[in-house]
Amino acid sequence: MNRELDHIGIAVRDLEHAVYFYTQILDGKLLDQYRSEAKGVESEIAVIEVNDSRIELLLPTNNTTSPIARFIKQKGKGVHHIAYRVDNLTEAIQHLESQGIRTMKETLRTNKHGRRLIYLNPADTEGTIIEYCDYPVT
Amino acid sequence: MNRELDHIGIAVRDLEHAVYFYTQILDGKLLDQYRSEAKGVESEIAVIEVNDSRIELLLPTNNTTSPIARFIKQKGKGVHHIAYRVDNLTEAIQHLESQGIRTMKETLRTNKHGRRLIYLNPADTEGTIIEYCDYPVT
Repeated sequence: MNRELDHIGIAVRDLEHAVYFYTQILDGKLLDQYRSEAKGVESEIAVIEVNDSRIELLLPTNNTTSPIARFIKQKGKGVHHIAYRVDNLTEAIQHLESQGIRTMKETLRTNKHGRRLIYLNPADTEGTIIEYCDYPVT
Repeated sequence: MNRELDHIGIAVRDLEHAVYFYTQILDGKLLDQYRSEAKGVESEIAVIEVNDSRIELLLPTNNTTSPIARFIKQKGKGVHHIAYRVDNLTEAIQHLESQGIRTMKETLRTNKHGRRLIYLNPADTEGTIIEYCDYPVT
């Protein structure tokens, strides 16, 4: 089964400063910027391509309910998750479960670009939030 | 100037479990495992290739002086840094300084594989520890 690094998700408090850093200093390209009020997101999101890799900047839009805001309160700004692209998310989840790795069902969603995603339980990944995602077949 | 994602550095408390996760669950390949007592590192390091991307797992070997131990105490386990490869580290540092981005001089070092590296000041990167590195010309 293929697992390819899709992007690195980063929690920020100053989106303008973060976009400046990744575009002007790291010479990245701003691919998209949008707001998602979906449950479990509640963030303004900027997607930046640095060479062949992608960064997803996440600014919480609700300081109480956004999980990104809670993450920043607990751990501070910085990397929130690492996302790997798989061929088929449904099969990948089944495969993870057969290996005893739990996913966080409440995080399963489809984003603006049609990407389906879920977060793995950090207790099973030695602490890092790992996202698995797949893309619609075009 | 080229900036290519080189690896993602992850602070862990159970290296065996982390190596298991990235090799057996994410299907990565353990490229190297070694101990570095260099100042500013003091960690057991496992380098794992997942498809085309690399993960560097960092287990502190000294709970008081290792910066990785301090990171885990402050923020918990998880992503410690993102490393970008540049063509020439000396020129890249000069370029950063000309743009007002500070580096942490005390982190400048050459690792086991001849990679020269330095960390950027997280105050200038919106919170994430960014590593710049280059490799010896072979």
